[in-house]
Amino acid sequence: MPFTRISLRRGKDAAYHAALRQGVFTAMRSTFDVPAEDRFIVIHEHDPSSFDFGPNYLDIARSEDLVMIQITANNTRSTAQKQAFYKAICDTLTRDPGLRPEDVFISLVEVAKENWSFGHGLAQYAEPISARDA
Amino acid sequence: MPFTRISLRRGKDAAYHAALRQGVFTAMRSTFDVPAEDRFIVIHEHDPSSFDFGPNYLDIARSEDLVMIQITANNTRSTAQKQAFYKAICDTLTRDPGLRPEDVFISLVEVAKENWSFGHGLAQYAEPISARDA
Amino acid sequence: MPFTRISLRRGKDAAYHAALRQGVFTAMRSTFDVPAEDRFIVIHEHDPSSFDFGPNYLDIARSEDLVMIQITANNTRSTAQKQAFYKAICDTLTRDPGLRPEDVFISLVEVAKENWSFGHGLAQYAEPISARDA
Repeated sequence: MPFTRISLRRGKDAAYHAALRQGVFTAMRSTFDVPAEDRFIVIHEHDPSSFDFGPNYLDIARSEDLVMIQITANNTRSTAQKQAFYKAICDTLTRDPGLRPEDVFISLVEVAKENWSFGHGLAQYAEPISARDA
Repeated sequence: MPFTRISLRRGKDAAYHAALRQGVFTAMRSTFDVPAEDRFIVIHEHDPSSFDFGPNYLDIARSEDLVMIQITANNTRSTAQKQAFYKAICDTLTRDPGLRPEDVFISLVEVAKENWSFGHGLAQYAEPISARDA
Repeated sequence: MPFTRISLRRGKDAAYHAALRQGVFTAMRSTFDVPAEDRFIVIHEHDPSSFDFGPNYLDIARSEDLVMIQITANNTRSTAQKQAFYKAICDTLTRDPGLRPEDVFISLVEVAKENWSFGHGLAQYAEPISARDA
């Protein structure tokens, strides 16, 4: 169920994009209890005038290869799980496509489990109505 | 006040996009108590390398025509209302532009009512200050 | 830490985009306790068929120059601070690039402070583990 938007500068090729997508998903699988196949990721490419970042916030030296990753997920993970998740994303993306660890920015947005529909107009994760509204 | 982002593969024409926008808005009107004119929707088009999904998650067979719809709205709806909303979106979009029901993915993000400004720099939905801070 | 997405119609130049980015950041600095350098902003440009708004919702007459600004930030601000923030954004953007006040739409999404990683795979804003899990 996580839904991910990855923003980066325009100009990387398809293999680079694929590595970004795969790295985030691998990290979800290993640390965030995300099932196989539960993969919904889009990439946004930006021109220089549409991509703005503080190059040294928190004394972290970012480059033009910065990747801003925003993930919407259920509100069921502990802070320790989130920390493991961020580390796993950074680990996978520094391996492939070879990002610098300074260039991995992550924003997590949490929602209730009834806030998803995966098809057919159903809320697949919602509690059964009998339990909820009885 | 809902603000909607629709992500899909690049290549559909303007009429197809218009049907997506109209279908989501019609569903909001009928099930989510959204006023006439309260319509704020953008579409993001993605190349193949920028659009990634599990083609069979939850045994739902998705196609390249998958549409990922992310809606930010006030946190005032019941689960039953959300379920009606998802069903209404699926109903409108399968009619026009003719999506398969398997290809309708919805993510809902909820916020407080003071989290909006519709113009003039005002928080039009916030409680009056006297009631709030007195 | 705020992460900002600005959506507008395609066709404005780089200086216009820079003014939008700078205006939002200036407002964050003056009203939202955002540190210098804590600047993460992307712009999305949309074709006419991908940009849809109610031209008169709440009797506010919007134009094609409407800018939809979505900001993800920590859930630490009061309603009064949010109101000051919206006003400051509207003030900066009407000065430069010269938006009409009717054309400033803002959506705020709030998250917990452990929901960010600014690099190195760390959750820089999370409480120390000893305090949190002891």
